[in-house]
Amino acid sequence: MNSPRSTNAQRTSHLLGIEGLERSFVEAIFSLAKEHKRAVANGKSRAPLTGRVVANLFFEDSTRTRTSFEIAAKMMGAEVLNWTATGSSVSKGETLLDTARNVDAIGPAAMVVRHGSSGAAQLISRYVRCSVINAGDGAHEHPSQALLDAFTLLERLGSLDGKRVVIAGDILHSRVARSNIHCLRLLGAEVLVSGPPTLIPVGIEALGCRVAREFPAAVELADAVMMLRVQVERQTELAFPSAQEYAAHWGLTAALASRMKPGAVVLHPGPINRGVELSSEVADGARSTILDQVSNGVAIRMAILETFAW
Amino acid sequence: MNSPRSTNAQRTSHLLGIEGLERSFVEAIFSLAKEHKRAVANGKSRAPLTGRVVANLFFEDSTRTRTSFEIAAKMMGAEVLNWTATGSSVSKGETLLDTARNVDAIGPAAMVVRHGSSGAAQLISRYVRCSVINAGDGAHEHPSQALLDAFTLLERLGSLDGKRVVIAGDILHSRVARSNIHCLRLLGAEVLVSGPPTLIPVGIEALGCRVAREFPAAVELADAVMMLRVQVERQTELAFPSAQEYAAHWGLTAALASRMKPGAVVLHPGPINRGVELSSEVADGARSTILDQVSNGVAIRMAILETFAW
Amino acid sequence: MNSPRSTNAQRTSHLLGIEGLERSFVEAIFSLAKEHKRAVANGKSRAPLTGRVVANLFFEDSTRTRTSFEIAAKMMGAEVLNWTATGSSVSKGETLLDTARNVDAIGPAAMVVRHGSSGAAQLISRYVRCSVINAGDGAHEHPSQALLDAFTLLERLGSLDGKRVVIAGDILHSRVARSNIHCLRLLGAEVLVSGPPTLIPVGIEALGCRVAREFPAAVELADAVMMLRVQVERQTELAFPSAQEYAAHWGLTAALASRMKPGAVVLHPGPINRGVELSSEVADGARSTILDQVSNGVAIRMAILETFAW
Repeated sequence: MNSPRSTNAQRTSHLLGIEGLERSFVEAIFSLAKEHKRAVANGKSRAPLTGRVVANLFFEDSTRTRTSFEIAAKMMGAEVLNWTATGSSVSKGETLLDTARNVDAIGPAAMVVRHGSSGAAQLISRYVRCSVINAGDGAHEHPSQALLDAFTLLERLGSLDGKRVVIAGDILHSRVARSNIHCLRLLGAEVLVSGPPTLIPVGIEALGCRVAREFPAAVELADAVMMLRVQVERQTELAFPSAQEYAAHWGLTAALASRMKPGAVVLHPGPINRGVELSSEVADGARSTILDQVSNGVAIRMAILETFAW
Repeated sequence: MNSPRSTNAQRTSHLLGIEGLERSFVEAIFSLAKEHKRAVANGKSRAPLTGRVVANLFFEDSTRTRTSFEIAAKMMGAEVLNWTATGSSVSKGETLLDTARNVDAIGPAAMVVRHGSSGAAQLISRYVRCSVINAGDGAHEHPSQALLDAFTLLERLGSLDGKRVVIAGDILHSRVARSNIHCLRLLGAEVLVSGPPTLIPVGIEALGCRVAREFPAAVELADAVMMLRVQVERQTELAFPSAQEYAAHWGLTAALASRMKPGAVVLHPGPINRGVELSSEVADGARSTILDQVSNGVAIRMAILETFAW
Repeated sequence: MNSPRSTNAQRTSHLLGIEGLERSFVEAIFSLAKEHKRAVANGKSRAPLTGRVVANLFFEDSTRTRTSFEIAAKMMGAEVLNWTATGSSVSKGETLLDTARNVDAIGPAAMVVRHGSSGAAQLISRYVRCSVINAGDGAHEHPSQALLDAFTLLERLGSLDGKRVVIAGDILHSRVARSNIHCLRLLGAEVLVSGPPTLIPVGIEALGCRVAREFPAAVELADAVMMLRVQVERQTELAFPSAQEYAAHWGLTAALASRMKPGAVVLHPGPINRGVELSSEVADGARSTILDQVSNGVAIRMAILETFAW
């Protein structure tokens, strides 16, 4: 299989979301990521981005995602420019586009963008010369997260064709859920979403998933359960009475996890609220892929940057 | 022309301001910057600072200037040490000189200093072994900004000899204005300053410029108009009634810009207050050099660091 | 002497404190540090950590220590991942261990940890694959500081065998004092501690030091006086009436320093409270090793990282 970087058309494009990607493209990213993961493990990583600059443009705090992109870029020889909203010209009232065009003028090969508004990365991509990689825009998409999740699932399950994945929690506000629904469907999985009714968007079925009203029953039949972080900070009003209530109805406890199929796995994008959406026994147990997701995140982002930072 | 780095006398010196520099020195910086700009564009940048450390010592926030120096240093192979006031020993009451000497003891080749007080960089330069590069000290000087502005003007206008440049806005509090007056005069330009009478310092003519009372008339005759950012944060009292009033009297609107000479250009050091000192039509129009200034900033800082980080 | 890195047993271990280390190990670190110091001075530093990642995991602010480790790592070719508590998942309620395991999953060779609780680095070391280097845990230990202090003393005094060192100030809350007592004793020095009675922990003699009730008398007989920073921010209640009172009784003034033995030196870990624990005449005088400590800090941390970041 050719690597995505050999596809001429990709050179000038952006990674704004999973929606609309071709399965072959996603698989090419996985192939590159596998190669990078092996090279890093053997201490023989290539430096294809030497002399190039990757800019991190984060309007929302995210040490986790920013650091993963930063290490991925540096391991391939790139220099990283971290442009955070705090203390920057953003606090002096500069517009989103002026900031992005300013960073672009510095000359990066790619710009990794995190913003609280859906569509921010796409908007920026229309005004800059460099590639734009969406690292999360509002409740819209977070493509690198979905790619590392699917990559991790493939490592554990072999294939996603016909597999059943349950995404559980606050679907309404979750870009992770949205990108994962697209990515898992693209790779042949059946996707169910489950959570408090107030946090399931009306019409979510249009994305190709089903709503599982009975969370425990869905867990029992799943090959993988992806628990979302309860993001209290992004809820405009309280969608459930309390963390205890949430844990009782929508948390993945050890008791519930024990009823999962043999070999079925549990994912979480982190950071975990232990005892809320996930019990510690499950988070630290054999089914958990949480730390694999983090490790794979670096390999996936190396593959993304190698593909787009030209 | 020999590069500035070959001049033995420069090796141990500092870049504290434009005032007092020789024209040949400034032109040698431009020559180096042009060479770096071309090399970066061709993906063939040299790494003359490999193994050296450049320290960024910023007592005032400035993602823009700090990042430009950081990328310039990294593209030449240097390691960058970012020492910001927030969360550092500065917040524990350490004096300016103790902080600077501490950073110096780490062993950098050069220290890039931003501070809210005029003279801070010069004071530090008397107590450290490394070169000190002033990245803005109070309302005094900001030499790298003036160099990149002049470099950009030379690209657009060919020469500055006999050209007329209008600097408009808050001249009183502007280190950008002060450094530019020195630099533009040195390169043969005629400089006019214009702005609210409360923001024009008494005796500014001593720097070799004239005061233009009628801003629109000055704009019509200018080869370049440099709009300063309205820096509300640096005014101790309100020098004008409102942003609307300011825009009406001292803003560069599309209507006013349309009366500029053919080929005349508009500069702004950023970040822009759109609709205040500069209308969006002008900021994004053909006369605007704003993004060129950002790009050239990296090349100019490469030239400065190559010259001083020994 | 073999370098510590050749000892197979060291490869998988951690640097959590000075207590329990062998004298030969400490001397091997010094030997490596001396080699690095010479190489850096000659512009010929090796890059044994190329392709490796060193993670800085700082839960307390410390530009000084973090920067020293960062420059040390970069000068040996490593990439540095800075994970600070501010703006990270820590502020979203992630536990200490989850944060540490997440950073570990990114794949660093070593993790440099600063935390406000005693034992934090040791706790983390039991849950991660990489080496853990304690960069300060509560009032417990700060081993790299003690190593750089002893290294500086050896440069000035030749040997520590039989030398008398007075550590003065807030012994109760000081990890610097605790690590130094262990390190100085290990290298053969006699250690005295002195300070306000409320700030001398009961039973401190168990560490092998003596309490000097008369600070001036102790200073007169010392080969080295190590002044601790008055850390107002770490005292839960005021242990002395005022900074003036403190300076009068426990500060090292020029008058007192003039009674020190010829060749006796003064150390301070920084940042200094000038006029409180140390007068400016002494801080900037010939006995002061303060800037040497900073310079040596980089060499010591290069030696530590070369030893542990495998």
